[in-house]
Amino acid sequence: MHIHRGNIVFTPTRQDFVTLSSGYVVVGDDGTVIECTERLSDRHAHIEVTDHGDRLIIPGFTDAHVHACQLPNVGLQSSMELIEWLHTLTFPQEASLGDPERADAVYGSFVELLLRNGITSSVIMGTIDADTTTILVDKLVEAGLKACVAKVSRDRNTSADAGEDTTHGVAEVRRFIQQTLARSTRVIPAVAPSVSMVCSRELMAALAEQAREFGIPCHLHLSENSTEVDVVLKMYPDCVDFVETYQRAGLMTNSNTVVAHAIHLTDREKQVIRDTGILIAHCPHSNLNLLSGVMKLADYHDAGIRVGLGSDVSAGHTLNMFANIVGAIQSGAMNYLTEHTSRPILAAEAFYCATKAGGSFFGKTGSFEPGYAFDALVVDDSMWLKHRDGKKMPLVQRIEKLIYCGDDRNIEHVYIDGRPLR
Amino acid sequence: MHIHRGNIVFTPTRQDFVTLSSGYVVVGDDGTVIECTERLSDRHAHIEVTDHGDRLIIPGFTDAHVHACQLPNVGLQSSMELIEWLHTLTFPQEASLGDPERADAVYGSFVELLLRNGITSSVIMGTIDADTTTILVDKLVEAGLKACVAKVSRDRNTSADAGEDTTHGVAEVRRFIQQTLARSTRVIPAVAPSVSMVCSRELMAALAEQAREFGIPCHLHLSENSTEVDVVLKMYPDCVDFVETYQRAGLMTNSNTVVAHAIHLTDREKQVIRDTGILIAHCPHSNLNLLSGVMKLADYHDAGIRVGLGSDVSAGHTLNMFANIVGAIQSGAMNYLTEHTSRPILAAEAFYCATKAGGSFFGKTGSFEPGYAFDALVVDDSMWLKHRDGKKMPLVQRIEKLIYCGDDRNIEHVYIDGRPLR
Repeated sequence: MHIHRGNIVFTPTRQDFVTLSSGYVVVGDDGTVIECTERLSDRHAHIEVTDHGDRLIIPGFTDAHVHACQLPNVGLQSSMELIEWLHTLTFPQEASLGDPERADAVYGSFVELLLRNGITSSVIMGTIDADTTTILVDKLVEAGLKACVAKVSRDRNTSADAGEDTTHGVAEVRRFIQQTLARSTRVIPAVAPSVSMVCSRELMAALAEQAREFGIPCHLHLSENSTEVDVVLKMYPDCVDFVETYQRAGLMTNSNTVVAHAIHLTDREKQVIRDTGILIAHCPHSNLNLLSGVMKLADYHDAGIRVGLGSDVSAGHTLNMFANIVGAIQSGAMNYLTEHTSRPILAAEAFYCATKAGGSFFGKTGSFEPGYAFDALVVDDSMWLKHRDGKKMPLVQRIEKLIYCGDDRNIEHVYIDGRPLR
Repeated sequence: MHIHRGNIVFTPTRQDFVTLSSGYVVVGDDGTVIECTERLSDRHAHIEVTDHGDRLIIPGFTDAHVHACQLPNVGLQSSMELIEWLHTLTFPQEASLGDPERADAVYGSFVELLLRNGITSSVIMGTIDADTTTILVDKLVEAGLKACVAKVSRDRNTSADAGEDTTHGVAEVRRFIQQTLARSTRVIPAVAPSVSMVCSRELMAALAEQAREFGIPCHLHLSENSTEVDVVLKMYPDCVDFVETYQRAGLMTNSNTVVAHAIHLTDREKQVIRDTGILIAHCPHSNLNLLSGVMKLADYHDAGIRVGLGSDVSAGHTLNMFANIVGAIQSGAMNYLTEHTSRPILAAEAFYCATKAGGSFFGKTGSFEPGYAFDALVVDDSMWLKHRDGKKMPLVQRIEKLIYCGDDRNIEHVYIDGRPLR
C-alpha cells in the first residue's frame, strides 16, 4: 500500500467538486484507491506517505475522441467545414502515416503530448493502416498509458489512399485486434467504421461482428455536420435517421460504444443513446472550429445521457484538457445565451466529463472513490498563489483557476494504477 | 537604421494576411518602419541586419481593455453574471489594491505578463486610487511598454471602498493625469467614468471636461449585460439608450474613446459609434465567462465599426492574445451557427483586431506598413515544424497554427519603437 498526501479534488457526481484540504489517498498494492480521507486512521499509520505538499491531486483526464495521426495538422483550421476539410487536409495527412518512419515520429510525439497533458486514458483512432497503427499501440504500451485504439475502416466515398477493399479491410481489422490483445491489457483494441458515409453496410456489419466476437468497444462518428447528415440520409433511404444506419449493421447496440460529436440528434436518436448507455464524446473546440454546430451538453445531461470530453485533434486544436473543459463551459454558455438550453454548464460538470464520465469507458478511472484506479495528476499551481497575502485560497477556487489558466506546465507528476509515469 | 530579416506576417486590412517569406523590415532611427520587402534594395545594402532565421516576425498585440488590478482574480469565473460578480469578487479585489505594497506586487506581475505575452500596447483601467494607479504607470514606463492608463472613477451604487466622493474624485483624476503626462510619452493617461450605473451625471461631465482640456482618451464600459442595460435605462429615464447616458455628459463625442463590450446595442447606438469612429473593445472570453451575450463582430465589421480585442482580465481569463484571437473566431462561429450573423470570422480578421485595429488607438502600431512603429514580436514556432519531412509549411498555415496553439513560450523577443525590450 501507499499513501499520497496533498490537496485532493475530484467529481464523484457532476454537481460538485469534492475537495480535501491536505487530504490522503490510500492506494492498495493493486493500484486502486482504498480510501480518500482528511484524517488517516491508525491502521494506516505504518504506510509510507508521499507528501505532495501544497500541490493539488486530481484524477487523470480521459480524451474520449482523438485522431493520433492528425497531430501535424493541429491548428490548421482554415475555416473549412467538415467535408471540405476532410478531403483537403485530413485524408492526405492520414495516408502519409502509412510510412512507418513517419508514423514512428508522429505517434512518438503524440504519446509524449498525452503524458505531458495528463491524459491517462484516451479513445484513439489511428489510420486504415494496421501495421503503423500498431506502432502507436506499442508506443502507448511502452509509455504505460491507458488507451483504446482502433485501426480505422473505410471502403467508399473517400480518396483512393484513405480507403481500402472491404474484404481486405475486415481481415486487417482482425489482425490488428489480435496483435493488440496480445500486447497489453492497458491498451485495448476497438473497431472503428469511421462514419456511415464512407463505409458500406457489409463493412459495418463485419466490424460489428468482430466487436461481438472479441468483446471489444466500437468507436464511431455521429451527426457532426448538417450537410453530412443529409448525405447519409440520402445514402440510406431505408433508415429514419443517422443512428439507424449503424443499428441496421448491428452497431450502437451496447454501452461499450463511443460516438463522437452527436450534435444534430433527433429525439429517437437521443433515446437510443440514453437507453443503450452509449458514451458521447463531446468535442467543443472541434464543434466551433469546423462550424459544425454546438452540442447541447446541458440538455443531454438532463436527459440522462453519458457524455465524455474529446479533444478531437486535429479538428480540435489542443490536447490541453483544461482548455477543452473551458471549451465545454463556454460553448454551454453560448447555448444558454441563445436559449437553446435551460442552464449554463458549471466548471464541475465539465470537469466530470473530462474525468469520471469519459473514464467510465475504461472501467473505474477518473475519480478517487474506493475501487477506482489511482490514475492521477499532481499539479503545481503555486505561481498563482503569490498575491494572496498569506491567505489560503479555497480549493474550489484553486481548481477553477487551474481549469481556466492551466496547461502542461502545471502537471508535475502523472500516476497510472498507482505507479508514477512522470 | 536597422534591418530585421525573418518570416514576416501582418494584416494591413482585415481581409488577409500579408506574408513575406525570408523578408526584410527596414526600420528608421526613429523606430518606425521604412519598408517591408522581399528583396533588399542597393541603398540599404550597408545597413546592419539582425537575422531571425526561420522565426516569424509579427506586430505586437494591443489589449484594448484590461483591468490590471484584477490579475489575482484571473480564472475565478464562478459562473456568476456581471452584477453579482462585481460585488462578490471584483470590487473587494480592487479595493485591496489601495495598499501600495500589494499594488507594487500585483502591478509588477501584471507588467511582466504583458511583456511575456507580447502585448506592446494596452488600454488599462487601474483602480479609483490615484497613487497606486501611478505605481502601475511607473512599472509600465520602466518596462518600456506603450499603454493608456486610467484611474477609475465611481461615485455611486458601489461598495463604500470601491467608490469615492465626487469632488474629491474629480480632483484626484486631475492629479493623476498631470502626474502621468509628466512621466512619459509612451504611457498616456485617460479618464474612465467606469460605467453610467456607478457614476453621477456630475462626475461624468467633469471627466468629459478633463478629457477635452488635456486632449486625452476616454475609456468606458458599455452595454455588457442585459440586466445592466435595464438598470441604466431606469436610472436615466430621459435617455433613449445607454450611449445617450454618456453623450449627455459630453462623453463618446470623438474617436479618442474606447468602449468595452458593446454587446447589446440599438441601431442608433451602432450608428453613433460608427459615425464618431469610436473603438469597441471586443472581449470574447469575458462575454462567455460572465454569460453576458456574444458581441456580433462580423456584423459590426460589416457596418464599418472599428473593433479591437480586449482580454478583459479578470472577467476574461487570459492575457494570451493568441487565445483571445481564437475566442473571437470561435464566438464568431457561434454567432454564425446560431444565425445571428451572416458569416463566420476568419483568422486574419481576428488577428487584425488584436494588432492594427486595437493599435490604432495608439496611433501607428500593429502593422508593418511604412510609418508604423516597429512594435514587433519575434516568434519561434519550430516545435511544430518537425513533422514536415523537410517540406516548408506556407506562412499562412504557420500563422494560423501559431494563433490556435501559441502561448508566451513562443514569444522570443519583443520590440517597441525598434528597440528590443526582451
